[in-house]
Formats: sequence, C-alpha cells, structure tokens
Amino acid sequence: MNRAFEKLQPHLERIMALNTAMTLFNWDTDTLAPKEAGPYTAKVIGTLSDEYFQALVNDEVKALVKECQEHGEGLDENQAAIVKEAARTIEELEVIPKEEYREFSELQSEAAAIWSRAREDKDYEAFAPTLEKLIAFTKKFAGYQAKDGQKIYDVLLDQYERGFDMESLDRFFSQVRDEIVPLLKQVVEKNDTIDSSFLTEYYEPEKQEEFGRFLAEYCGFEFDKGVLATSAHPFTTNLHNHDVRITTRYVENKLDSSLFSIIHETGHALYELGISDEITQTLVGGGASMGMHESQSRFYENIIGRSEAFWEPIYGKLVETFPKQLEKVSLDQFIKAVNKAVPGLIRIDADELTYCLHIMVRYEMEKMIMDGSADVKDLPKLWNEKYQEYLGVSPEDDAEGVLQDIHWAQGSFGYFPSYALGSAFAAQFYHKMQEELDVEGLLKEGNLKPIREFLKDRIHRYGKVKETRDLIKAVTGEDFTPKYYIEYLKEKYKKIYSLA
Amino acid sequence: MNRAFEKLQPHLERIMALNTAMTLFNWDTDTLAPKEAGPYTAKVIGTLSDEYFQALVNDEVKALVKECQEHGEGLDENQAAIVKEAARTIEELEVIPKEEYREFSELQSEAAAIWSRAREDKDYEAFAPTLEKLIAFTKKFAGYQAKDGQKIYDVLLDQYERGFDMESLDRFFSQVRDEIVPLLKQVVEKNDTIDSSFLTEYYEPEKQEEFGRFLAEYCGFEFDKGVLATSAHPFTTNLHNHDVRITTRYVENKLDSSLFSIIHETGHALYELGISDEITQTLVGGGASMGMHESQSRFYENIIGRSEAFWEPIYGKLVETFPKQLEKVSLDQFIKAVNKAVPGLIRIDADELTYCLHIMVRYEMEKMIMDGSADVKDLPKLWNEKYQEYLGVSPEDDAEGVLQDIHWAQGSFGYFPSYALGSAFAAQFYHKMQEELDVEGLLKEGNLKPIREFLKDRIHRYGKVKETRDLIKAVTGEDFTPKYYIEYLKEKYKKIYSLA
Repeated sequence: MNRAFEKLQPHLERIMALNTAMTLFNWDTDTLAPKEAGPYTAKVIGTLSDEYFQALVNDEVKALVKECQEHGEGLDENQAAIVKEAARTIEELEVIPKEEYREFSELQSEAAAIWSRAREDKDYEAFAPTLEKLIAFTKKFAGYQAKDGQKIYDVLLDQYERGFDMESLDRFFSQVRDEIVPLLKQVVEKNDTIDSSFLTEYYEPEKQEEFGRFLAEYCGFEFDKGVLATSAHPFTTNLHNHDVRITTRYVENKLDSSLFSIIHETGHALYELGISDEITQTLVGGGASMGMHESQSRFYENIIGRSEAFWEPIYGKLVETFPKQLEKVSLDQFIKAVNKAVPGLIRIDADELTYCLHIMVRYEMEKMIMDGSADVKDLPKLWNEKYQEYLGVSPEDDAEGVLQDIHWAQGSFGYFPSYALGSAFAAQFYHKMQEELDVEGLLKEGNLKPIREFLKDRIHRYGKVKETRDLIKAVTGEDFTPKYYIEYLKEKYKKIYSLA
Repeated sequence: MNRAFEKLQPHLERIMALNTAMTLFNWDTDTLAPKEAGPYTAKVIGTLSDEYFQALVNDEVKALVKECQEHGEGLDENQAAIVKEAARTIEELEVIPKEEYREFSELQSEAAAIWSRAREDKDYEAFAPTLEKLIAFTKKFAGYQAKDGQKIYDVLLDQYERGFDMESLDRFFSQVRDEIVPLLKQVVEKNDTIDSSFLTEYYEPEKQEEFGRFLAEYCGFEFDKGVLATSAHPFTTNLHNHDVRITTRYVENKLDSSLFSIIHETGHALYELGISDEITQTLVGGGASMGMHESQSRFYENIIGRSEAFWEPIYGKLVETFPKQLEKVSLDQFIKAVNKAVPGLIRIDADELTYCLHIMVRYEMEKMIMDGSADVKDLPKLWNEKYQEYLGVSPEDDAEGVLQDIHWAQGSFGYFPSYALGSAFAAQFYHKMQEELDVEGLLKEGNLKPIREFLKDRIHRYGKVKETRDLIKAVTGEDFTPKYYIEYLKEKYKKIYSLA
C-alpha cells in the first residue's frame, strides 16, 4: 500500500467517526430527542463539528494528502478518489477563516428558529435581516472559493452538482419551460376529468404505517440494515451502508403523502444501502451528488412508483388495508389521482409535472440574489410575480410564498436546481434501463430485483468514486441531456389525460 | 477565573462531547439500530473511544490538571471537583498501556456476543476461555492501579463505590445475612397466603405502555426533557440534564415487570434530571456512584413504589386500564402480590427481600475469583452450592445459573455489591426523610413533589461534587449503616405477611 495513504488512514477514521457521530445526533434531534434538549445538545454538536474541521484541515493531513496526490503509486481507484475528495474538501474549507466559519455556523443554528417563527407569523420582515446576513456570508465564502474569475453562483452550483453551472442550467430550464408550460396548460383544462377526492378521506395512521412498512420492503428496503421512523419532514440519513434510516409522517387525510414519501425515501435509502463495502465509512462512501441522490428517489417515487404496472400486484393489498375508503376506486382511478397535475403554491406538495416550475422560480431568484440584481427586501414581490408567471397562482401571504422552504435559512443557496436535475437524470437512466430490461413487465410481476440490481451495479456501488457527469455517461452512453425527461413527461401526461 | 482551569476548559468540552457521542451510540444500539449495523458502528464507537482516551490522557491536559491542583486559587467547589475527577480518571487510565487497553476493549466487545450465545446454548464451556481472559485483564489492570499493597478486589470495589472495601462489605453482608435469612424462612412458610396469580394474566402491551407513561410522569419524569423507549433490558441513560432516557419492556403476562421497572428507571432518571445546570455536561455532572444511583432507583421502585400509600391515589386508574384482569383484586391484595418474596434463581426477577442474597452469592464469588481461590472451571459448581445455601434453590443449567448476568462478560467485577448497597443507602435516606416529611401522607395525597425536592436538594443537584460517603453523612447526619435497611425490611415484611 502507498505509505502516505497508510499514514492518512487513522486521520480518515477519526474524520469519519466524527462525521458519523454528527449524523446520529442530527437523526436523533429530528426524530426523538426531547423538546428541551436543544441548546445543550447543540453545544455537543458544535464541539464535534469543530473537531471534525480540525481533524480534516490541519498541516499533517494536508501534507499527507499532497504527498498522495504527488506520489500516487500503489493507490487503487477507491483510494485515489478518497484522496481527491479529501483534497477538495480541505480546499473548500481552508480558505474560510476559522472565526468566520464559526460565526456562520452560529448564525445558521439561530437562523432556522428565526425562519420557523417568521413563517409561523407570516412575517417576512422578521426574517429579512437574518437572510441578509446569510446571503452576505454565502457570497463572502464563495468569493474565497472562486477560481479564475468564477461567478459566485457558479461556485455554489458546483458545490452541490459538480460540472453544472448557470450556462448549463439556463439551457436546461429553458428547454423544460418551453415544453412543460404549454403541456401544463392542456392538462389543467382537463383536470375535472380526474377525481382525487378519495385520497383525502380519513386514513388511520396506524394502518398507513403498517402498509408503509410493507411498501418500503417491497421496494427493497432492508429492515435488518435500516430503520423507518417518523419526523416533521420526511428524510433519509445513514451511518454507513448497514444502517440507513428513513422517515415519513402519516397525515390522516392525505393517503398519498406517506405512500409516496416512503417510496421516495426508499429510493434514497437504496442508494446508500447499495454503496460497496470497500468504500462505506470513507469520504467517498455516499451518493455522488445531490442530483444523483434525487435521481434515485424520484425514479422510485415518480417513474416507477406512480405507474400502473408498479401498483398492479399490490393495489389489492392497499384496498384490503383501507376497504371503506378504496373499495370503489379502481386501479386506473387511483393512478390518475396520484398523478393529477395541479399548479399550486407549495413545492413539497407539487406533482411531478409542476415540480420543476417551482424549482425554476427559486433558481432564477438565487441567480439574481447572488449577482446582486435582487435585494432582500424585494424577494417576496419577485417570488409572487414568478409564481404568477410560471404557475398562474399567487400566494396569500409569505408563509406560502417566499418563506416556505428552510433551505435559505440553512444558508443553502444553489441546492434547489439539484431537485430538478435529479428528475431529469432519472428519466435518462430509465430510458437506458428500458433498453435492457422489460421494466413494465417486471413491475407487473412484482419483481423489482432486476431494477434494483441495475441501479446498484451501475450507480450505487460507486458512491462518490465516479462523478455525476461521468456516471451518467458511463450508464447511458451519452452526456446528460434533458430530452428524455421532456419526452417522458409528455408521453406520461398525454396518456394520463388522454391528450391528442 | 483560574488561568489553568480556563485553559483546561476546551479540553473538557472535547472530552464531554466525545463522551456524549458514545452515550448516544450506546442508546441507539440498544433501542433502535438495525441488526446488521453492529460491526460497522462498533468501529465508529472504537474510534471515538480512542479519541476520548487521548483527549483526556495527554501531556497538555495532565500538566493543566496538575497546575490546577497545585495552584487552585480561584477555583470554586464545582471546578475543584472537576479537577479532582479529571486527575482520578487520568490516574486510573494512564497506568494501563494503551495497547493492552485496546486489546481489552476488543475482547469486551467480542465477549458479550460469546456470552450471549453460550447462555442461549446453556454451554458454560463455550464462555469459560473468554471469561478466563477477562479475569486476567481485570487482575492485571487492577494490579497496575493498586496503591500501597492494596488487594485486587479492593481496587475494583473502590472504582465502583469509593470508600468501600472488602472489610466494610463483609461486615455489611454478614449483618444482612444474619437477619434476612431467618426472616425469609418465616416468610416463605406463609407464602400460600398470598395470591399473585392475577399478575400473570394477559395484559395488552399497548395499555401497559399507556399506563407506564402515566406512571413515569406521576413519579416526576419530564417528557420535555426525556424519552421512554423499549429495549431488551430496562436501563437509564442521559446526554445531559435536559435529555434523560429510560427504557422498559412490556411482557404480556407479567404486569409487574413493566410497572416496577418504569418506576425504577424513573428513580435513576430523576437523579440525572436533578443534576444542577452548573455541572451538567462536565466530568462531575452524573450520579455520585453506582450505589447512589441504585439508592434512588430502589427508593422509588421498592420503598415508595411498592407501598400501599403510593398506589392509593392511582390504583383505580390501573384497574380502569385493565378492568377484566383487576376488577376483583383489592388494593391490599395487589400490594401483597407485588411484595411477595419467593426465593428464586434469577437475580433480575428477585423480590426486595431475596435480592441481596443474590448479590451476596456474586460478591463472595468475585472475592474468590480475584484472590485466586476459585478457578474459572469451578465457578458453576460454586454458584450452585451458594444458591442452595442462601436461597435453597439449585439451577437446572448454567443459563439460569452462573451465565445469567452480562456483567462479567463486560469485564465488570466489583459492580454487583453496589446494587445491595443502593438498597441500604435508600433505607437510610428514607429514615431521615420520614423525620422531616410525612411521606405516607404525601403519597396518599398523590403529592410526590416534596419527596422529589428532598432528594434533588440534598443529593441529585450535587452530581459527583460530593462523594457517596460524604453525601450520606451530610444527608442523614451519620455514616453509612445497614441498620435502617434491616429494620425497614423486617418491619415491612412482618406487616405484609402478618408475622409476629
């Protein structure tokens, strides 16, 4: 083995152990910790996060990483990827003065509570000064990190989705917009042909949970390597590839909420469960990027999970679980209802067709925030105008407008586009998968294993060893293109709505 | 503030953060983690435990601790106690060669699984070689730690219960034995007068849980600062004084199991919840000793929790929860049943009267193991003889004999006596409490607050700032004595069994 890499090993173990500890604290905070634990536990997390920073960014580790990069003899592919990832993370962190990083971390932890209160009170003014500061920090940090005259927002985009920038995203979104906006218009006109009212009857949470556990397992979630719990917002997290955890919430009068969030999170979970043993618990032992992760969750949730073929073998069981509510609802009606496209105000409630319009609003606003063409005070107005333009709806207040998402309050700018990219990646993978597998046939047989294996073999097991754009090319034989996504949406919605 | 202590502060924060992380991992492992996570998560815990060791035992910390000890000007009582605790822990750890410590840790983590399998297979031989090694390590480490010709077992006893040694424990156990063995004889002869069969009817686990949550809260457990979960064996743990967690298990046909384990764990929890804000998240922010902790849990479980006065205000609610099983059972019958003394084989199922005989067996065996007068191969025979002698029963196999407890498999020798001491401490506190409070009257009113405040004010808030023996003296005005314990048991059991 490479000598420098060998010496790096114990450092990497410390870094990963501290990281895993922070993951567990975050999981625990979101699912179980008592109400008053907050500030005390935050101190512990703060200390661990300092430890993590210091374990990674220090002269010894930097020297060893450099040595590995310069004398990489004997490093295998995984080790080389670990070194590259370490170098990249160090580079991103070390340019930020430690004092400023801590200030920002403290601001972040306060900001979530301020945002949450402001949203509750529908009071944008109460959040605006904090948002102003978050933006200032983000710009400053991205400024430190920018290379060769790189624009601020491009720095941020690259952090969430390596290889993507404003130029490529502008192109992507404009193609999507040109095709989806007219399609949506056609669809909305025929919305009275689809009855989805049965989805909002009363569905016992206990029974939703029972079916939810079955559903996760049906999709391939392994309860010997995972946990399903409840939390305010569904999410997936993992300690390593043998401990992957998903959450959902059971809303009494919204059957589709838990069903599809469980399928969605299972998609994320399968990614983490599929990481190979050789790289789990290393810096490259996670999903390749945000967008790649979303491609897996959205593939399961939307492409497969909302298809008739998927439900054919198990719809009977759902009806058995909720006979009163569903006995008169045919599979065809069910599928139409869970795919009904309705332009709305809230991103997380959006259907597959309108979802990426919600993202577009945020993308365009983030661009303007970062290039200075939009002031914090103007954001609510801008938000409402864009919703009117793309979705034809206007928020009644900022809680259902500019205050709805937590991302900016966490200092995450440049994250949203990954949601839309994920859907597009998924469609491109799906296109390729269909060339090799009879996906519809497999779903009808209730045999999801070949589908799971396809994704594990081509994508999951590599973790971050391969980068997103390279992975897409390796899997599909071509560079990323939105064309399959657009084709998929058109075909699907024309069928659902019996359009010409 | 003292300059050296100020410099020590960030080290102490790291130490506590790492400690809290390990606590959370252990909680998670015992309550929630998926089956296959074990070996992967163990690696993380191992790394964190190394970090903890190094954060505490290093030249910089040692020098600062020494400086604080030598120049303690400006240290307040809490800070002085923190320094003392740090010095003591360093002293205990630093004499053990790091390599040996790691070997022992690895052995420990394997041993639990080997023991568990051996117990399942009722196969002592399968565990004996591991036990041999655990004993060898324990002796070696205690040898390193021994001062001035101190005996091995005295070193171990002092670690769990400072200020106690074989001399004091021999005295304690011989007094207890002399009084309890004859009392037990009288009691057992009248056991057919007490019917406890209703306790083993079917009790719905969901309803047990519902009542259990009420019961914990009734005793003072605060759900805004705590969690109640389930695990294979009930336990209490805490991240700090605003996050204290207890577990129980709901056995279908054993109502008293969950009831009294919840009261027991709540007793532990109230101790940790009562630690003052000034010392939580420091080295002295936990219970003073194992025995002190057990005194609180046993005070709640046995002294209060199995009394008629305690149940008077809430027995009706228990009957309402289980009308079919309990409607014909009077409060008097219920109290007699949950106090019935039956000499048995299993420690954790033992009643209040026989419990300390179980401990005596272990204490005497540990003495012999540590002074070399008992060989590992002879332990099963020795165990069975002692059970016959003190309790009049003999195990059918080693699973219900020498293999029943996990303690030795964890390398914990010297721990058991604290269980018995805890009961005795509790009785001594109870005696004092009765001089100041009308305990029975308060219980009958359902007003547990003054009882809770008494314990919090005199014991809980100090954490480890005061040592066990000093605390007992400060609270009760006299040194530890078993006389109140013996009096309490005699009085109680004479009443329950209507003895002369």
